[in-house]
Amino acid sequence: TLMPANEVNLTAQPSRIAQIMKYGFPGLDNVRSHSDYVLSYDRRNRVPHWVFEHLTAESVAKNDQVDRAKCDFRPDESIHPYFRAQNTDYRRSGYDRGHMAAAANHRLHQKHCDDTFLLSNMAPQVGQGFNRDAWNNLEIHVRKLTNIYRNVYVCTGPLYLPHKENDGKTYIKYEVIGANTVAVPTHFYKVIVGEAADQRLHMEAYVMPNQVISNDTPLQVFQVPPETVERAAGLLFFDQLNRKQLASINGKKV
Amino acid sequence: TLMPANEVNLTAQPSRIAQIMKYGFPGLDNVRSHSDYVLSYDRRNRVPHWVFEHLTAESVAKNDQVDRAKCDFRPDESIHPYFRAQNTDYRRSGYDRGHMAAAANHRLHQKHCDDTFLLSNMAPQVGQGFNRDAWNNLEIHVRKLTNIYRNVYVCTGPLYLPHKENDGKTYIKYEVIGANTVAVPTHFYKVIVGEAADQRLHMEAYVMPNQVISNDTPLQVFQVPPETVERAAGLLFFDQLNRKQLASINGKKV
Ligand SMILES: [Mg+2]
Ligand SMILES: [Mg+2]
Repeated sequence: TLMPANEVNLTAQPSRIAQIMKYGFPGLDNVRSHSDYVLSYDRRNRVPHWVFEHLTAESVAKNDQVDRAKCDFRPDESIHPYFRAQNTDYRRSGYDRGHMAAAANHRLHQKHCDDTFLLSNMAPQVGQGFNRDAWNNLEIHVRKLTNIYRNVYVCTGPLYLPHKENDGKTYIKYEVIGANTVAVPTHFYKVIVGEAADQRLHMEAYVMPNQVISNDTPLQVFQVPPETVERAAGLLFFDQLNRKQLASINGKKV
Repeated sequence: TLMPANEVNLTAQPSRIAQIMKYGFPGLDNVRSHSDYVLSYDRRNRVPHWVFEHLTAESVAKNDQVDRAKCDFRPDESIHPYFRAQNTDYRRSGYDRGHMAAAANHRLHQKHCDDTFLLSNMAPQVGQGFNRDAWNNLEIHVRKLTNIYRNVYVCTGPLYLPHKENDGKTYIKYEVIGANTVAVPTHFYKVIVGEAADQRLHMEAYVMPNQVISNDTPLQVFQVPPETVERAAGLLFFDQLNRKQLASINGKKV
């Protein structure tokens, strides 16, 4: 049942945090609890390490009381000014302010939607062909999982992946934008757990490059073993779960 | 007074941690307390975020009971294997295993020295011209500060500094070595607080590029405002101190 938007508490409820983080924290660095998602902030890169959401069919359902157009992108005052991304950092950078916790995942209350517009929840994303296309398709896929699973837990974040150069050496290279040198991640990940009605757990993991992706590329192309994301991100996902007891990973029986 | 090397406790004492960290933690990510230094580990880059030491004339004095040659570089088993640097990562990389907490700062007990040889305390450093020269000179300078100050607190770590390229954009780029992709920092920092006999506090901050540095370069060339390191590292140093009440920063009256 929906509460009117103006009756929701402005701060996160401890019980809601426990719900969202049910299967473990990927890391404990600069954690922030918002009204409907939990975030770990990377103060060096001025983008999240990870954001964690718990979705249900109810929380992602259309709700006329919640209007995305009323939300403003705004700096997160809870982050020290030395490490705080500003709207001016993104301006004329060529990159979108890309939500990590997607706005459309948080439709129960206006406040939930508002909270996803904090710049601490953003990372620079290629707009056309990525944020507004392939990445958006992945977000839609995650929301649709609430039709299959009673509870969907999703962890989202940036990656800075190495590549080999002509000198035979391996490098990590990424652009930084604006006066606050906000990192432009080379890739983004999502690691998802779906809790079925029979209590069985299903995991999916995706890595997408932060670049124009042809719209006809099937999502499966971006599936990777969850360990691949863990090694690259320096995080452990859903570590309260025994991975061998999952029903499936990326659609394959474990 | 010195305890015999074999009588020292193998684990860090809470009181010793409180001593070392007297003026605040720079961050709280993956903190490890060793027998005579405290470290925050960067699981993504497989090197420290920062290490913290508390030095006195006594702790850095020559001690025949402590022999660096008895110490072995070894992986830190307290780090999850996905994020653990190995000796093989450094082999044939062209880089030294560079101590962040310097071995020669920990001469009270063999165990103190041993603990600095954990690979979690290392970052890849250019050997000749840097680790064995300019950076070593900075370490010697810090030890000499114990002749001036009763207590010396020093925080050391890596930086990944941006540079502008011909396309007008700004990038962060660094090499990664070995199967575990250990990051080769572009620079290293030290932020130091000296506590004088009159209780007055003096701060120094240094940033050095991880490259061959001419031996006749004076240390002062590498002094920077502490805020510069903080912004770049994503850390706040000695945040329990009011910086306006320091007696000096980089030798200049505050
Ligand atoms: Mg988006
Ligand atoms: Mg050294």
